[in-house]
Amino acid sequence: MIRVAILGATGYTALELIRILLRNPAVEITAATTRQEDSPHIASIHPSLSGRLDLCCENLSVSQVVERADFAFCCLPHAASAAVISELLAGGLRVVDLSADYRLNDVATYEEYYKVTHPDPERMRKTVYGLPELFGDQIPGEQLIANPGCYTSTAILALAPLMAADLIESTGIIIDAKSSPSGAGRSLKQHLLYSECNDSISAYGLGGHRHQPEIEEVLTTVCGETVDVVFSPHLVPMERGILATIYARPRTDASDEDLRNVMREFYAGKPFVKVVDHLPGTKDVSRTNFCHITVKRTKGYLTVLSALDNLIKGASGVAVQNFNLMAGFPETTGLDPA
Amino acid sequence: MIRVAILGATGYTALELIRILLRNPAVEITAATTRQEDSPHIASIHPSLSGRLDLCCENLSVSQVVERADFAFCCLPHAASAAVISELLAGGLRVVDLSADYRLNDVATYEEYYKVTHPDPERMRKTVYGLPELFGDQIPGEQLIANPGCYTSTAILALAPLMAADLIESTGIIIDAKSSPSGAGRSLKQHLLYSECNDSISAYGLGGHRHQPEIEEVLTTVCGETVDVVFSPHLVPMERGILATIYARPRTDASDEDLRNVMREFYAGKPFVKVVDHLPGTKDVSRTNFCHITVKRTKGYLTVLSALDNLIKGASGVAVQNFNLMAGFPETTGLDPA
Amino acid sequence: MIRVAILGATGYTALELIRILLRNPAVEITAATTRQEDSPHIASIHPSLSGRLDLCCENLSVSQVVERADFAFCCLPHAASAAVISELLAGGLRVVDLSADYRLNDVATYEEYYKVTHPDPERMRKTVYGLPELFGDQIPGEQLIANPGCYTSTAILALAPLMAADLIESTGIIIDAKSSPSGAGRSLKQHLLYSECNDSISAYGLGGHRHQPEIEEVLTTVCGETVDVVFSPHLVPMERGILATIYARPRTDASDEDLRNVMREFYAGKPFVKVVDHLPGTKDVSRTNFCHITVKRTKGYLTVLSALDNLIKGASGVAVQNFNLMAGFPETTGLDPA
Amino acid sequence: MIRVAILGATGYTALELIRILLRNPAVEITAATTRQEDSPHIASIHPSLSGRLDLCCENLSVSQVVERADFAFCCLPHAASAAVISELLAGGLRVVDLSADYRLNDVATYEEYYKVTHPDPERMRKTVYGLPELFGDQIPGEQLIANPGCYTSTAILALAPLMAADLIESTGIIIDAKSSPSGAGRSLKQHLLYSECNDSISAYGLGGHRHQPEIEEVLTTVCGETVDVVFSPHLVPMERGILATIYARPRTDASDEDLRNVMREFYAGKPFVKVVDHLPGTKDVSRTNFCHITVKRTKGYLTVLSALDNLIKGASGVAVQNFNLMAGFPETTGLDPA
Repeated sequence: MIRVAILGATGYTALELIRILLRNPAVEITAATTRQEDSPHIASIHPSLSGRLDLCCENLSVSQVVERADFAFCCLPHAASAAVISELLAGGLRVVDLSADYRLNDVATYEEYYKVTHPDPERMRKTVYGLPELFGDQIPGEQLIANPGCYTSTAILALAPLMAADLIESTGIIIDAKSSPSGAGRSLKQHLLYSECNDSISAYGLGGHRHQPEIEEVLTTVCGETVDVVFSPHLVPMERGILATIYARPRTDASDEDLRNVMREFYAGKPFVKVVDHLPGTKDVSRTNFCHITVKRTKGYLTVLSALDNLIKGASGVAVQNFNLMAGFPETTGLDPA
Repeated sequence: MIRVAILGATGYTALELIRILLRNPAVEITAATTRQEDSPHIASIHPSLSGRLDLCCENLSVSQVVERADFAFCCLPHAASAAVISELLAGGLRVVDLSADYRLNDVATYEEYYKVTHPDPERMRKTVYGLPELFGDQIPGEQLIANPGCYTSTAILALAPLMAADLIESTGIIIDAKSSPSGAGRSLKQHLLYSECNDSISAYGLGGHRHQPEIEEVLTTVCGETVDVVFSPHLVPMERGILATIYARPRTDASDEDLRNVMREFYAGKPFVKVVDHLPGTKDVSRTNFCHITVKRTKGYLTVLSALDNLIKGASGVAVQNFNLMAGFPETTGLDPA
Repeated sequence: MIRVAILGATGYTALELIRILLRNPAVEITAATTRQEDSPHIASIHPSLSGRLDLCCENLSVSQVVERADFAFCCLPHAASAAVISELLAGGLRVVDLSADYRLNDVATYEEYYKVTHPDPERMRKTVYGLPELFGDQIPGEQLIANPGCYTSTAILALAPLMAADLIESTGIIIDAKSSPSGAGRSLKQHLLYSECNDSISAYGLGGHRHQPEIEEVLTTVCGETVDVVFSPHLVPMERGILATIYARPRTDASDEDLRNVMREFYAGKPFVKVVDHLPGTKDVSRTNFCHITVKRTKGYLTVLSALDNLIKGASGVAVQNFNLMAGFPETTGLDPA
Repeated sequence: MIRVAILGATGYTALELIRILLRNPAVEITAATTRQEDSPHIASIHPSLSGRLDLCCENLSVSQVVERADFAFCCLPHAASAAVISELLAGGLRVVDLSADYRLNDVATYEEYYKVTHPDPERMRKTVYGLPELFGDQIPGEQLIANPGCYTSTAILALAPLMAADLIESTGIIIDAKSSPSGAGRSLKQHLLYSECNDSISAYGLGGHRHQPEIEEVLTTVCGETVDVVFSPHLVPMERGILATIYARPRTDASDEDLRNVMREFYAGKPFVKVVDHLPGTKDVSRTNFCHITVKRTKGYLTVLSALDNLIKGASGVAVQNFNLMAGFPETTGLDPA
């Protein structure tokens, strides 16, 4: 039995984590933290857990977490996460960090985009990026894994096979991404109100979103060339999902079918990425850990499409993939079988 | 030209008021108030007004409002409204108050449901309830009108014709009402987040909602008997609208058609209430000032249905009806023609 | 390995069945039928199954199904289901029928509400109604189970504990139910178009819906008195879910807490029904096999609330519960653990 | 009084036309056509018109329409429209055609994209394209106006000012557009069902959508160079609206502010296009005839954004603008004042 702690248990990614982990009989959730002082029962925070998990969310110190758990999922905001992870690791816990604090290698980029000083820059530089389809063989032995951003996984899973095979230009790539508001978390912000989001689509953060450098850094690693993207996120009124419509200039005359076969080969043996011949919709992958990708030539561009559930494959599902690899469970445990 | 002030201009009812008033060339909006100190342009608060109204939202004192305007729509929260209305009236302004402060006649009921002491109870008792279909002849000469609640208009417009004709029992009435979250305003509350409201319906405030005594009090006036209702509001993931499904025990054997004719006669000459032979949906009345009602016998009950747009016929549209009657404009000015 | 056939595999309940069954490694889906002659791959019908199930939907005869499968889920429309079930049973298959054909005991009621002559009335009368929380002990040995309607499960699960304990009147019960359009299936009807359903709520089928006699018949069995309900279904713009708000007259002065304890005791040991102290929303149970119920006194009525996912607990999830009981798997297999 | 006929009165654009025209007291709607033989009342087709317009939809011949009306809005499908317009014109009616039949100048392109032979190619070539912001001075004297496509207006209104001023490259432009399903009309197609559209975004028609050549042809006229675009439409679960996110390579170093000023100058005096400094959302323009546009430099591209209501500014609102110009009414009659 592995004792698991969820740090920052009141948000949407924490709820998805718990739902998935409850399907693994070898896991026991032993701690759920919050800054609220009144120790609310988890079911009062997440009514969907009523009768399923008898646990209170507590304002625990790190040392209390260390006592109670063998493994921690850290769902804290950026900076808050880095502030506790060293101590968790020192206490012997293994950790999947869902914040952005250990994703990037370049500290200056982190500090520019997140407007904080990183307290733990050396660890940051060497932490493995937890996208199992690309870095799965590096994950099992690690004590800390940086869980990817939701937009970044969507974009990287689509582009990596084409970049690894040198089939597209590495610069001038346009990533027009559309996300459910659930990706912004459970925070009280006016633009996240139902009456603001519903019945509307709008762009935000054009050219300055924090996932842009993350996409560039990881894809630069994949292809060995400096990757440059324009990333345009949009909020779409839907419960779940991200669709990325990506425009890249081809370095090949290969047919759509051939390009999809390159993608298929790249993901052979990977249970959660499906290369499809149709144009995927977010509904096809909603509430699952699957990512559907395809590619189609449109005049002078390759249009690459990628769809996943932002809270599962984009956050908590991939976190459990990482956990499974670290803890020695089959990669699909708790997730849908391939 | 009538100079109009909007007090509490940052919310959804204020926006709807402005949209409607802009269609009346004899109205000039001269003041829009907010507690924000930085005087934001109205278009930064309501982007849909971009290029349409060049006005800043200002933290104005009541005396400043009195100087600038002849008429005020008060969109402040309850209690905040009562705190300024006496001064507005003393300054000579005519006022439609969209808050609950002057709706009820019974001060004890107000104080029980709203948990505040009413500063102006005498005026409260004698203020005309601004439902023009019922009290239209009392409105023109008034200086202050209490604009009805959204749920209450929905229920009252459906029940009044049957009660006035003594066709249903006055007690044990069940009002199962379903509303858009927009009725709750633009406030930062967790249950109003997109990711909480979307893809879900739930009941709230069962048996204790503030509109319950308002419905009872007005209908008691209509029928002359003490009216007793059970009011069950629900939040529905839709942009606009309220549907009330009402169950009452009949005092008649009249056919559905006859009952609808009673309703039709009751609303003869009233432009905004339409008695329909089908089951109305909120979409039929969305973004309009119309209310669609019907009735159908279902075993031992009459099921009475009523649909309207909560922000228009349920708030700002009826407010402009009241304004039109007070200011001597045709009742439909700025609203859709019948 | 149990070989399973899905009859009528192109609709939403079939998709949910497949998703659930894929989680049971002891099940192999060996046949999926359709009336389409071109044998489309299941992933072209249900893109979410891409790469997960390599099977074509075929226009199979009953005898072909008998050859290929040990167990059948029948997702055909009413009447079409009764037309094949005798032959499936004669061929030795065990069957869960998701249509309405074997739910009622009273043939005249069936023929009045469904406007067809029942070809198999004797079997109809004696088929066990597959609501495991009520009739679980009768299910294991059966060859055919009639899977309940979605609205009916919602209402019955809420009312049964109170009726079994004689705590409410058995007549004059009002069931105001709100459902996702997904309950109406994948048929091409104008009122099911996105642009008709979205941003609207409306009632339909008042007093004449086919689930009304089903609710009455089952509850009459439960409480031993003739049950009479007024059933008012509504369409709500949401992906999944049914909420029933039920009004019944109490035969007791028991407190809300005591009434909930009666419910809790009734469902002790039943993994999928949760009695909650708050007002449940459909989001709390969406994509799960759980049903959340509660009760609250509101003036002269008990308001009983019940929420479930119409396609899972209301259709395919309970179908798998029935299958699990019949096939000897733990009741929760493929479904969420309690 | 102008007598107006609506050909093809059962769809969404017809409903919007009627709603707008009812606000013009100098217009009488005298004919509404359908292929249905039973002459349904308009309110049974469009319940929102209950009590507002007493008119039946009839299967009228063109000569009957000619007798009854002075002006026709043609809301028929492509090809069906061209089949009747000559006769309407010969009968002396003036016509706004909302179909695609007279939009393009190039017959071969029309026949390639629409897969039909055009019966009236000479008229097609010389019909004025009814985008009043660009071609307003050519509209008043015309007998026939080709109303633009919804996507095309969105894209053209955003790009025209920059192209007219030679500020962007005319080729390699990417138009990533997101639309409400209402743009696809009221037709019974599986992908338009609520349960398919809701909670999902997906791309369709990549590289082959019929609005692509329309955008290219009109913009080529605007800028005098051959324009080449990649057009990627998406379906978004929202009631109304189109957002186009457009990526073009700049021919200038001008600042965002300067570029917006170029846009503002281009649309000076045009009541319905608003250049905004923020990123527009479709909600800002929903249910209005306004189009909000802006531009922002993002690395090597200019990102140009454009939002409008697909059924109003994208169809029926601009149709009434055209009608107003042709009939001599102020351009904003029936529409919101600027």
